Amino acid sequence: MATYYKHPTALVETEDVGEGTRIWALTHVMGGVHIGAHCNIGSHCFIEAGVWIGDRVTVKNGNMIWEGITIEDDAFIGPQVVFTNDRRPRSPRFPGARARYETKSWLVPTRIGRGASIGAGAVILAGCDVGPFALVGAGAVVTHPVPAYAVVFGNPARHQGWVCECGDKLQPHGSKWRCPSCARVYEQIGDELRALS
Amino acid sequence: MATYYKHPTALVETEDVGEGTRIWALTHVMGGVHIGAHCNIGSHCFIEAGVWIGDRVTVKNGNMIWEGITIEDDAFIGPQVVFTNDRRPRSPRFPGARARYETKSWLVPTRIGRGASIGAGAVILAGCDVGPFALVGAGAVVTHPVPAYAVVFGNPARHQGWVCECGDKLQPHGSKWRCPSCARVYEQIGDELRALS
Amino acid sequence: MATYYKHPTALVETEDVGEGTRIWALTHVMGGVHIGAHCNIGSHCFIEAGVWIGDRVTVKNGNMIWEGITIEDDAFIGPQVVFTNDRRPRSPRFPGARARYETKSWLVPTRIGRGASIGAGAVILAGCDVGPFALVGAGAVVTHPVPAYAVVFGNPARHQGWVCECGDKLQPHGSKWRCPSCARVYEQIGDELRALS
Repeated sequence: MATYYKHPTALVETEDVGEGTRIWALTHVMGGVHIGAHCNIGSHCFIEAGVWIGDRVTVKNGNMIWEGITIEDDAFIGPQVVFTNDRRPRSPRFPGARARYETKSWLVPTRIGRGASIGAGAVILAGCDVGPFALVGAGAVVTHPVPAYAVVFGNPARHQGWVCECGDKLQPHGSKWRCPSCARVYEQIGDELRALS
Repeated sequence: MATYYKHPTALVETEDVGEGTRIWALTHVMGGVHIGAHCNIGSHCFIEAGVWIGDRVTVKNGNMIWEGITIEDDAFIGPQVVFTNDRRPRSPRFPGARARYETKSWLVPTRIGRGASIGAGAVILAGCDVGPFALVGAGAVVTHPVPAYAVVFGNPARHQGWVCECGDKLQPHGSKWRCPSCARVYEQIGDELRALS
Repeated sequence: MATYYKHPTALVETEDVGEGTRIWALTHVMGGVHIGAHCNIGSHCFIEAGVWIGDRVTVKNGNMIWEGITIEDDAFIGPQVVFTNDRRPRSPRFPGARARYETKSWLVPTRIGRGASIGAGAVILAGCDVGPFALVGAGAVVTHPVPAYAVVFGNPARHQGWVCECGDKLQPHGSKWRCPSCARVYEQIGDELRALS
């Protein structure tokens, strides 16, 4: 059985937590959650049944993560990020909305790609997948999917540049993009970026 | 006496909670709060003395709700919504602001109307009432009152359309507005919408 | 030894808390934090090792405050404010970012000046100091330093006017600025304001 650390005040109802992961104070993880190995889940988080979190993910404090959210390996979720899984919510207790909540057809899933970073306090609308290694700026409101390696910020979030896998800002380099820190080179094809090295 | 459910880790200091309501983990409800029947109050919330919440209201996780806030029946408060009750806050402990906090004249109340939906992470400035069945988009910053049935989003939040009581987007229908899901019809009079059916 | 109040459910691991300070429910304060005298720290906060908070500071509920953040005397931190201390975060567990987190060179400190007010749900980017008595509006995303006495709001936050030490809006008064409440007078020199009385 995997050995992970749980703060004495954390409520962890799943057994599906990987080796070396740490779950901090006053965080509540429901049953039916998968958390991979070597993750760090900060204090004051809530993780709902049905969430899937990969390996080596950092989830900072104050995150509320809903059914339908998948967070791939190596991603960074800053503090107090706001996730959603319903594009037109009503109170499920309101008789006029009861039909809407009889099945799960209201549920719109969202995927945070491998190695992506979601800045503090960003808001991710349901269905707006964030591509691998993309960087969503702090306080951004993401209303459209974010391509791999893209930097977006603002409300609504707009494409502002490209970021390297290592985290540094890419710079134009002839017809390519290049990282000044680690020298990785990328090729832009239409609105997408692809790693060449 | 009403029977409601309280998670063992919730701190509930009011006795004024209606039948069938559920209050989840690590939430703190002060004395002097009214919560109606058949509500669902998520984890990691704080509800201050003086708050009034109607029946069948959904309050998602991570909400901090202040004195002066009233939430009418059937409303939906998304996760991590930010309420306020002071338009020009200073630290009440700062000697230069002590006079301001000697009475409650600084307190500006806000009312969330019946059946309204407040999107995740939205910010509601003190005094900006949200009308019945209005929909405030995720991440919106509401700086003016929101009319009934209005859809608003952005920072500052602007009027973007109309929403039906059932949650679907209204569409123009001759001189009226009509819901494609439930066929309810609405009439626009100036900047306001009125249900006809 | 200083006497302060701690709610029975608060986790306080520092001994460096001043006289008369109150720390409320379900808040976690790490060791290595300094909190001054006569502060009020709301529920559901997390305060990380290395934070320094002065005297008579109000920290409302739901704040997550990171190493590198300094909050001077008499400041007001509204509910659910979002602080940051890393401008290009990656998961420190991601092998491709491990070098970045071997030292603390990623850490960018931020100072909230004496008597300043940070509105509810505002986002403060790392390194954006907020000057004394400035007022950051609710929901603002602060991407540049804020001068003393400035009012800023929006995403990105922009300069919208000036505020008196006492909290009221300053008005033009000949070549000066004057507070209609307390009659204090200020002089503008370039982009900065200086108190004359």
